[in-house]
Amino acid sequence: MTAIRSFFRSRWIDVPTNVSEPQAGLPRGFRAAGVACGIKPSGGPDLGLLVSDAPHTTSAARFTRSGTQSAPVLLCRERCELDGIRAVVANSGNANAATGRPGYENAAKMQGAAAIACGVGAAGPVAVASTGVIGVPLPVDAVMRGIAGAAHALRQDGDADFADAIRTTDAFAKRACLDVELGGGVVRLTAQAKGAGMISPDFATLLCFVQTDAALSPETADLLLSVTVKRSFERVSVDGQLSTSDTVILQCSGESGVPVKPESDDELLFGEALDAVLRQLAVYVVGDGEGARRVGRVVVRGGDDRAVQRVARAVADSPLVKTALYGGDPNWGRIVQAVGAAMPGTAPLEVGVTIEGMPVCVRGQYVPHDTDTLKAAVRGEEIEYEIELPGEGAETELFFSDLGHEYVTLNAEYTT
Amino acid sequence: MTAIRSFFRSRWIDVPTNVSEPQAGLPRGFRAAGVACGIKPSGGPDLGLLVSDAPHTTSAARFTRSGTQSAPVLLCRERCELDGIRAVVANSGNANAATGRPGYENAAKMQGAAAIACGVGAAGPVAVASTGVIGVPLPVDAVMRGIAGAAHALRQDGDADFADAIRTTDAFAKRACLDVELGGGVVRLTAQAKGAGMISPDFATLLCFVQTDAALSPETADLLLSVTVKRSFERVSVDGQLSTSDTVILQCSGESGVPVKPESDDELLFGEALDAVLRQLAVYVVGDGEGARRVGRVVVRGGDDRAVQRVARAVADSPLVKTALYGGDPNWGRIVQAVGAAMPGTAPLEVGVTIEGMPVCVRGQYVPHDTDTLKAAVRGEEIEYEIELPGEGAETELFFSDLGHEYVTLNAEYTT
Repeated sequence: MTAIRSFFRSRWIDVPTNVSEPQAGLPRGFRAAGVACGIKPSGGPDLGLLVSDAPHTTSAARFTRSGTQSAPVLLCRERCELDGIRAVVANSGNANAATGRPGYENAAKMQGAAAIACGVGAAGPVAVASTGVIGVPLPVDAVMRGIAGAAHALRQDGDADFADAIRTTDAFAKRACLDVELGGGVVRLTAQAKGAGMISPDFATLLCFVQTDAALSPETADLLLSVTVKRSFERVSVDGQLSTSDTVILQCSGESGVPVKPESDDELLFGEALDAVLRQLAVYVVGDGEGARRVGRVVVRGGDDRAVQRVARAVADSPLVKTALYGGDPNWGRIVQAVGAAMPGTAPLEVGVTIEGMPVCVRGQYVPHDTDTLKAAVRGEEIEYEIELPGEGAETELFFSDLGHEYVTLNAEYTT
Repeated sequence: MTAIRSFFRSRWIDVPTNVSEPQAGLPRGFRAAGVACGIKPSGGPDLGLLVSDAPHTTSAARFTRSGTQSAPVLLCRERCELDGIRAVVANSGNANAATGRPGYENAAKMQGAAAIACGVGAAGPVAVASTGVIGVPLPVDAVMRGIAGAAHALRQDGDADFADAIRTTDAFAKRACLDVELGGGVVRLTAQAKGAGMISPDFATLLCFVQTDAALSPETADLLLSVTVKRSFERVSVDGQLSTSDTVILQCSGESGVPVKPESDDELLFGEALDAVLRQLAVYVVGDGEGARRVGRVVVRGGDDRAVQRVARAVADSPLVKTALYGGDPNWGRIVQAVGAAMPGTAPLEVGVTIEGMPVCVRGQYVPHDTDTLKAAVRGEEIEYEIELPGEGAETELFFSDLGHEYVTLNAEYTT
C-alpha cells in the first residue's frame, strides 16, 4: 500500500505501516452531514448528523466524569443503547449544560428527532452531544429544523461537513480518514474531533466520533476504545479544565465483512491504528489549544504511579510552565517548582529535568549547560520535557498546550 | 484614637475599631534597611535586612510545603531558632532554589554574614529568605556586599526600603504600619509582604514579615500566626502555583512592655488586628497578581469540608473563570464547569451560583436574570461569587486574581 502520511505529523506518534490515506469518505455503511441551523450568531455550521445504515452496528462510548454533566451526557448514560449506537446528533454553539429538566427534555427531543430523521426508528440507538456555552437554554426549535435539514444532506463523504459542524473555537477541523490493512482485508477508519479549550479529560474526553466498517463485537469495541482513550485523550491538557460535555463514541458498521476478533492479530493491528489516530488527534487538540503556538510533551519517570501522574498534571497544567512554553523561554525552574508543588512534604526532592535531550537539573541541582543551544531548542513546535523522580518503576506522559495572548483574548470575550 | 483607614481598602476585611495608622516606622526594638547589591539586572533594590535589637525577641514562622523547597527554606527549617528569630536577611532576583549543596552553603553564608552585620552574634536567630528566578546560582559575593551595606543603613523607619528590596514582579510594595490599642497599652504592628506570581500557598505562603513590640510568648506567637495565616495567605490563589520559597515570619520584640497573654482579651484584640492586616495583605497580593485588573472572592457553602475546599480551589484556579473575570464577562457557566470538575462522579449535582448577590443558577439550572445588570456588576474591582453545594455545614472562601494579557507578557518573558 502507498502510505500518504499527511494526517500523521507529530514525531511523538508511531505510525503503523499498514495504514494509508484514501482521498476521503466514511467507511461503508455510514453517512454524515453538517448544516447551519442558527445556534451560532456567526451563522456557521452548528448541527451535525451521522448515521450507520447497518442495523447490527456495534459501538462503545466514554463520557466526562464531571459532577455537572451536560444534559446530553446525562441522557446518553441513561437512555441510550451505548453498545449499539446507530446515529449521532451533535450541535455546537450551546452545551445544553446547567439547563436542568428543560435541558434534559431538549436533549430527548434531539434524540427522538434524529431517530426519525435518520430512519433509525427507535430513539435508543441515537446518541446526543452538545458543545458550546454553558448555562444558556438550547434554542431547540432551531435544532429541530437543523436535524431535518441535515437528514436530507446525509452523504457517504459528509464527514468533513460533520466535523465542521461540531467546531467551537477550534482553529481547524480535526479528522482522519484511513484505510487499515488487516489479515482479513482492508477496513476503513475515520474520526472527527473537536476541542480547543476546557480540555483536561479524565476517563473520557472532548468530542470525538470514530467510525469503522470492520466488524467488532461490542466488547471488543469497548476494550479497544478504553485502552486507546487512556493513551490519547486522557493524556492531554489544554487548560486543565474538565468539561461538562466530553464524549467519545466508536461505531462499527461491520459492512466491510472483515472481523476483528478478540485476541487475534487483527485486533492488535486494528488497535494500533486506532491508537495512532486517537493520539495524533489528541496532539492536534493540544496544538489547537486556544491560541497555542507550541505543544509540550512531559514524560515523567521514577517514583510510583500516583507520583508520576500528579507530577505530569502539575507540570502540564502550570500557567507558569505554559507561558514559558509560549514565550519560547527555557525557564526550567518553573518545572522544578511545579514538581515540588505536586510532591508536598518530600523536600529536598532530588528531581531531574531534561529539555529536548539536554539535562538542566540533576538530583535537584542545576547542571551547567549551553544556554543558547537550550534557547534555540525550546523555540520549535514540539518541546519535550523529561522528569526523573527518585526511585524507579512508573512512567507516564502528557501532551499540553502553551498559554498565550490568544487564549486570554478568546476567553475574556467568549460570551460577550 | 483617630483611625485613618488608608491601608484597609477591601470591603471583605472587617477593620477592628482599635487600630489606627501612624505615619510610619517599625515597632520599638526593630531596625531595617533595603539596598541594591547587584542581583537584579535592573539595578533595583534587592537585599533587605531587618533586626530586632531586643535579646529576648520571640517569633513564629511558616514555610511552603513544596517538595522542592529553596535552600533558604531548608536552612531555616534545619538551622534556625524559629521561636527566637532576631534578624531576617532576604534577597530578591534569585530564589536560590534547585541549587543543591552549593545553594545551601550560600544560604548558610547569608545567615552567618547577617548575624555578624546585625550584631546578633550567633547564626541561629537569623532567618534567610530568597525570591526570584529558580535554578540559577546565587551571586553570593554581591549578596555579601549587600549585607554589609544594609547593616550600615539600618533605621527604625527602614521598613519601606526593606519592603522595596523584597519585590520581584510586584507592581507595588505591600506593607502595613498600625498602632493597636490593647487593654495594657498601645502596641505597634508592621508588616511587609511580596508576591505577585507563583502564589497558591498551602500551609505557608509567599514572603511576609511581621513585627510587633507587644510581648508574646513563642507559643502565643505561633498560635496567632497559625490561625491568621490559615485565614489569609492560605486562602489566596494568583495562579495556583505553590512556590519553592514561601515564608512568613512574625517577630515580637516585647519592647512596648505590653504583654499579650494566652486566653486574655488582649490576645483576642491583637489577634483580630493581625488577622485584618494579613487578610488585607492577602487581598493586595491577589490584586497585584501579575497584571491583575480585578480580585475575585469565591465563597462556597454546603457539603463537607473537603468538598468546599476542592470546589473553591477549582474555581479560583480555573483559567477559564480567571479570563472571564479579567474580561468583565459574566460567563457563569465556567463556574458550573469548574465545580463539576472538582466533584467527579456526582452528576447531576444541584449546584447554585450567585454573582454579586444575583442568583444565576439554582439547583443546577440557570435562572432568568437581568443580563445587563449582571454585566455591569462584574466590571468592578472586587467580584464576589457564592456557590451552594447540596447538604449543609461547611463553608470556605478564597481570594483570587484574574488572568490577563499582562500575566502572559510577564511570564512569557521573565528570564529571557
